[in-house]
Amino acid sequence: MKILSVNAGSSSLKFTLLELPEEKVIISGNFEKIGLPDSFYSVKYNGKKDRKETLLKDHTDAVKILLEELKNYKVIKSYDEIDGIGHRLVHGGDKYTESVIINEDVLKTVESLVPLAPIHNPANLIGVRSFMEVLPNTPMVAVFDTAFHQTMKEEEFLYALPYEWYQKYGVRRYGFHGTSHRFIANKMKEILGEDKKIISCHIGNGASLCAIKNGKSIATSMGFTPNAGVIMGSRCGDIDVGLLPYVISQTGKKFDEVMNDLNKKSGVLGITGISSDMRDVEEGFNNKDPRCVTAMNMYANKIVDYIVSYNAKLEGADYIVFTAGVGENSDVMRDMIISRLNFMGVKLDSEKNSTRGIKGIISTEDSTIKVCVLPTDEELMIAKDTYDLINK
Amino acid sequence: MKILSVNAGSSSLKFTLLELPEEKVIISGNFEKIGLPDSFYSVKYNGKKDRKETLLKDHTDAVKILLEELKNYKVIKSYDEIDGIGHRLVHGGDKYTESVIINEDVLKTVESLVPLAPIHNPANLIGVRSFMEVLPNTPMVAVFDTAFHQTMKEEEFLYALPYEWYQKYGVRRYGFHGTSHRFIANKMKEILGEDKKIISCHIGNGASLCAIKNGKSIATSMGFTPNAGVIMGSRCGDIDVGLLPYVISQTGKKFDEVMNDLNKKSGVLGITGISSDMRDVEEGFNNKDPRCVTAMNMYANKIVDYIVSYNAKLEGADYIVFTAGVGENSDVMRDMIISRLNFMGVKLDSEKNSTRGIKGIISTEDSTIKVCVLPTDEELMIAKDTYDLINK
Repeated sequence: MKILSVNAGSSSLKFTLLELPEEKVIISGNFEKIGLPDSFYSVKYNGKKDRKETLLKDHTDAVKILLEELKNYKVIKSYDEIDGIGHRLVHGGDKYTESVIINEDVLKTVESLVPLAPIHNPANLIGVRSFMEVLPNTPMVAVFDTAFHQTMKEEEFLYALPYEWYQKYGVRRYGFHGTSHRFIANKMKEILGEDKKIISCHIGNGASLCAIKNGKSIATSMGFTPNAGVIMGSRCGDIDVGLLPYVISQTGKKFDEVMNDLNKKSGVLGITGISSDMRDVEEGFNNKDPRCVTAMNMYANKIVDYIVSYNAKLEGADYIVFTAGVGENSDVMRDMIISRLNFMGVKLDSEKNSTRGIKGIISTEDSTIKVCVLPTDEELMIAKDTYDLINK
Repeated sequence: MKILSVNAGSSSLKFTLLELPEEKVIISGNFEKIGLPDSFYSVKYNGKKDRKETLLKDHTDAVKILLEELKNYKVIKSYDEIDGIGHRLVHGGDKYTESVIINEDVLKTVESLVPLAPIHNPANLIGVRSFMEVLPNTPMVAVFDTAFHQTMKEEEFLYALPYEWYQKYGVRRYGFHGTSHRFIANKMKEILGEDKKIISCHIGNGASLCAIKNGKSIATSMGFTPNAGVIMGSRCGDIDVGLLPYVISQTGKKFDEVMNDLNKKSGVLGITGISSDMRDVEEGFNNKDPRCVTAMNMYANKIVDYIVSYNAKLEGADYIVFTAGVGENSDVMRDMIISRLNFMGVKLDSEKNSTRGIKGIISTEDSTIKVCVLPTDEELMIAKDTYDLINK
């Protein structure tokens, strides 16, 4: 079966066409700057990447070109060959604990959750509707970023805020990156043959940690929004909310501007003033730039805070798993994190850790918690959910 | 020497007169609702507490009555017998790393820090000025809540926010309860004869934790304001700042109202809807009120998060010290906290823990971290600093 895995943002649309159950990627691509004069797209096929500049006036335009390109690249002859389309949807609120076949009810519910994710959900919905317009008879599946974390207990997802804010308005921790953390949970079980207690560290430009027990999320670091938890590329993570009135009064900025700064101008970008990309910050760290050194230390410290917290919630974790951009590629950051856990017997095998492209265990034989690197694959997870649901 | 230890709030003034170096409390009292029609004060002397209702039109009024009462109670014959007055000042910014003799320069500096503590510093200053008016020749000392935490490293006190907010406006973690945590650090050294690695848990209506190494604060849970960190009576502690725009839009409240709610209507009061007093919440917990159960679990969880974080920063703590209202008196909360650390070998001696008024070690012989109860005494700390500085 050929399954299309789709991730639509406000001005972008990423796709991957996979063969299931073989889990083979056939072709993938990315439409960018949709609706802007300098829109373009790229297609990756057979190890080659083609970039094409063309006017993409809206998402439907992008979808039409995408489908035509699938024919041009001769990966399909007719649209009927696409057996299902899986869509990444950011926010399922407390309505969805797992992926679902998309119908009008689902669309209405996701629409009703727009206030919880005012930027992401509308963009995701545009993606879904564009495909529905062009391929009205192809089954589609919604895969929610929040669904995996719906197994958290109330004491984990509640904030110490007026309770009616939760009851009336749904103010609570939702958590995100659920598809990635679920991929890690499933993959670890597949490899180990049983459910172990796992601390999944999805550390990319966005970053979150998840404590996984019996294959289920019991705690996660992102909160009501994806701006909570650890330090990210340009997001502040956990801060003291009490500083807002002072920042507003001192900078003369408006509340909305400051909120935007917390998302776009904070994180390692804010600390270093250089870049939101950890590769640049690591370079600065290697060159002993003091603010890059501070940023790297703060970044590692905060991840350690969550690792030891989740280790306690799991009453002793079996595995720490690193995934996503930084987690998979930065041996320096992995080393900074794990060295802070040496005191409790968690130790890296420095040779394994520094092996380029390493996958698998990177801790020493006697490490009290095993540490490993495992590339995440959200596209595959979305495609598998789609495959499973349409074959149910 | 007779030293007066003073804590002035916006409408209150607490005092304790101590004999130093004997560390003996002579008399203490509390002026409340200053400037309000139902103002009153109470005096505690020889184990007896007298309450008196009288119009206190301002702090100077309260100070005059206070001094008269010292004569009435025959603890002094003349005001000259008061050798020094120590004032609790909340915010010393990054200007004060220790207590100082108050002079005009100090007053100006504290005044300049008012934007950082817009409610507390002005109130503290009113207290100081009222005493200066009535006793212009008595030496006075400023003891700052923030001073003890000035030993934190930059990577601990910085937030992942635009760096210029720190450089230009001093947006950083300051921490509070420094006088209490310092008392614990000093007292533990006095008892043990050497500096041990300590996690000080000041858990009262306000609550903060502090990691202490070589007698110095290396990390603390309160932040730019005292509303950060663990869950408190009515303060939210750490939350996702990203929820603010949503709460504002859904409740129709103004930004300032929501900020006030985070301070006054959150914490265990917010979760339970019953009380900000942990004694009430514990009663609800004992009666299996579901929201009280959730609140107690959340409260314990959050303290555990900081304990394990500080244990990592200390690379293995030697002591966990409980102090302040809840820390000293709630064996139930201490048990909930330490039971979450059983997995790492930290264990309470349940008999010792449940002994009413216990002071000292409450962990088992084989506990990997020793746990103890130690009553804090900020008034004494303030008096000692005053004594030391005026005898320098």
